[in-house]
Amino acid sequence: MFDKIANSQVPISDLIARRWSGRAFDADKRISRAQLVALLEAARWAPSCYGDEPWRYIIWDKYIDANGWTKAYECLAEGNQVWAKNAPILMLALAGSTFARNGKPNRWGQYDTGAASENLCLQATAMGLMVHQMGGFDADKVRASFEVPEQYGCMAMIAIGYQLSREAIPAELKERELAERRRRALQDTFFEGRWGEPVKIHA
Amino acid sequence: MFDKIANSQVPISDLIARRWSGRAFDADKRISRAQLVALLEAARWAPSCYGDEPWRYIIWDKYIDANGWTKAYECLAEGNQVWAKNAPILMLALAGSTFARNGKPNRWGQYDTGAASENLCLQATAMGLMVHQMGGFDADKVRASFEVPEQYGCMAMIAIGYQLSREAIPAELKERELAERRRRALQDTFFEGRWGEPVKIHA
Repeated sequence: MFDKIANSQVPISDLIARRWSGRAFDADKRISRAQLVALLEAARWAPSCYGDEPWRYIIWDKYIDANGWTKAYECLAEGNQVWAKNAPILMLALAGSTFARNGKPNRWGQYDTGAASENLCLQATAMGLMVHQMGGFDADKVRASFEVPEQYGCMAMIAIGYQLSREAIPAELKERELAERRRRALQDTFFEGRWGEPVKIHA
Repeated sequence: MFDKIANSQVPISDLIARRWSGRAFDADKRISRAQLVALLEAARWAPSCYGDEPWRYIIWDKYIDANGWTKAYECLAEGNQVWAKNAPILMLALAGSTFARNGKPNRWGQYDTGAASENLCLQATAMGLMVHQMGGFDADKVRASFEVPEQYGCMAMIAIGYQLSREAIPAELKERELAERRRRALQDTFFEGRWGEPVKIHA
């Protein structure tokens, strides 16, 4: 396992600094059910608007249901299939568009589901696992293949597994896998007082 | 400071287990700029689709710009004003609806912004701070007051500060503040193989 620590201006939580979306999964190491349940519990305890918990997830474990896993895998974009083939677990994150309690539109369904998935990613980091979320998949095919109700949006396919050691990364993944992590400058994202005004780093 | 640990079936990361959305803020303790920057850095390093980082935030610090803070505060729903009045920092989370690189619709803008905000919440927990996100605010008023561009959705107002000690919680907040945290059963949220099929906890 190798780290790609976030290059933050001040120290941040180790979990947050070490989470990153690698692609070089170890096809030979499976995820135990105890590990899986910990990942799900992390997602479960995310915050949500009015406590609606609008997120749902479908899980496919290659070692338990190879056919189901393959059906999910076949919904991925080709560029993702290249590396996701080695992930022992695939998951789908789904966001509810209505509140369970009254059926009215929930405009926070996707926002809250993103929080739940981030908890899952960070829990994976805590357990020495790697997670890579994908937007590149055929949402209509997923919906049809797995009977997803209309009021749930298919947000992300999620690959989960162990990371390959640096030495074992396949040649075609090496450059991306070892590239430095980058983000926009802090003051292009965080404003103070009004839109566009850069946050003051020093008071 | 008191904890309300998530009642998970298996142990999960301490940060994730301890994060919760309290309301009893200490009006007398301000947040330093170093603390604020750590919160922002945590959000900054969240994952996003195509690395777009669709999130933006506006910050109001009561101790630096009381007028701006009050203008933001006045956009909150009355039920939130009752307790948010004691939070030294208010923030607004905004989600981009188009990709920066090509202007095309970004259907992950809200999902990714939810992840960034969750990172901020967890970083606050790591630093002994408390965060409470609110859906209850007047989004149109916020947009008009702070010149938010049309392509950004106003997702959440965020209150940040120190938690009051258990003894100092005002009577009207006590019951909610001390109530046990609850979530739906794991198997009502996480499915296996297809929609609605409860995940197998044991292999």
